[in-house]
Amino acid sequence: MPKLNATVIPLHPYYPINVEIVGYVANKWNTFELCGLFASGCTIIFSLTYLAVKRLRPQVSTSDLLTVLWFVLCGCIHLFFEGYFAYNFSRMGGMQDLFGQLWKEYSLSDSRYLTQDAFVLCMETITAVFWGPLSFVTAGLIATDHPLRYPFQTIVSLGQLYGDVLYYATSMFDHYILDLSYSRPEGAYFWGYFVFMNSFWIVIPLYLIGTSVAANWRAMAALNKMEKALKAGGANGSVKKAQ
Amino acid sequence: MPKLNATVIPLHPYYPINVEIVGYVANKWNTFELCGLFASGCTIIFSLTYLAVKRLRPQVSTSDLLTVLWFVLCGCIHLFFEGYFAYNFSRMGGMQDLFGQLWKEYSLSDSRYLTQDAFVLCMETITAVFWGPLSFVTAGLIATDHPLRYPFQTIVSLGQLYGDVLYYATSMFDHYILDLSYSRPEGAYFWGYFVFMNSFWIVIPLYLIGTSVAANWRAMAALNKMEKALKAGGANGSVKKAQ
Repeated sequence: MPKLNATVIPLHPYYPINVEIVGYVANKWNTFELCGLFASGCTIIFSLTYLAVKRLRPQVSTSDLLTVLWFVLCGCIHLFFEGYFAYNFSRMGGMQDLFGQLWKEYSLSDSRYLTQDAFVLCMETITAVFWGPLSFVTAGLIATDHPLRYPFQTIVSLGQLYGDVLYYATSMFDHYILDLSYSRPEGAYFWGYFVFMNSFWIVIPLYLIGTSVAANWRAMAALNKMEKALKAGGANGSVKKAQ
Repeated sequence: MPKLNATVIPLHPYYPINVEIVGYVANKWNTFELCGLFASGCTIIFSLTYLAVKRLRPQVSTSDLLTVLWFVLCGCIHLFFEGYFAYNFSRMGGMQDLFGQLWKEYSLSDSRYLTQDAFVLCMETITAVFWGPLSFVTAGLIATDHPLRYPFQTIVSLGQLYGDVLYYATSMFDHYILDLSYSRPEGAYFWGYFVFMNSFWIVIPLYLIGTSVAANWRAMAALNKMEKALKAGGANGSVKKAQ
């Protein structure tokens, strides 16, 4: 079998060249059209969220507004786009609707999405089932300035960060140790899709975990100072009640 | 090659039967001796930590004491035991020191530890490098009742939980979808080692994330109440200073 495979011209554009893609059908839309549609989707999500937040909290800070936009976009991508993959993982090669073609375009940089890879499927399923809905919950908690916004921001961001680090790491292991590359050799796929697109879920979660921990620290410090201030003012009853 | 392998009697006790274990050497110590040594190690870690915490904070609550014991044990297991695996992953089959034999015993329930599996190596490396040291930091923060104890408790616990869920999930995927089992068929290995031993890192982190989020919520609520109490008492200067 290996010898036979090595001489057959692959019927798909994915790497490694001889990898089997069950039921593969070529995309009808090209890269430009698919990237344009994806960008349009993101723009619509951002615009609707912006209007909703400005209506709910007209005095919202720029930082809170940007964080809500981020988590709503994450919620949509995790729940719908990655959820689509988790649901259809066994027949991704033949999917021809918008999400199917988007995944096949992205898979040029990582064919594991078309080959029923155990880690990618498990990580994407957890992302869709947990980080998807929790991203919307976190967006809502930030939009309403709820006391639970920081714990949720930490949990979702760490979940995204860890999943993404493992996603990079498992691919790099196969690349460097097993000499097995899942990306086409053109730089635009490896650097543009695989590295750049996923780097958002490294940089932004790291920043948001940092701001969450800092906010928690400030709150605890403020609480300690206030306890002292109240005790000094003889208002011990209020402290005990508040605790 | 596949035909040849199928007729060869495996030279090791691991599953799947024909999996290749590079440089395999049989353990010198038996299950009873290895489990006894592991339990003794845990007992020593618990005893030393107990004495150290009681000296540092004689009035420590039982709940804080138990949480510190947990994180110190996790720190030792992640950094030293799992770090040992991450460092020696390519030659685990032939390792004959205590940790090597312990890993070979455990691998009877999951041979991926002896076959350079990409996911297991990446997850264990992240666990050793990040959750190991951070477990000790968290133990220290709890022992000293530091304001950062809860964010750190959340971060380390979620990291452990997510890693463990993916660990179970990837194995179950290969078991149910690919009909590929990494555990010997005896129930003691699958249920005792694989399911039971790892379930600690599902149940306890879930509980600790819950208590962290609850503590954060209570702190924020107390802060809000105190702000109101201070404002009502005309102590606005203190509030601003504290913030």
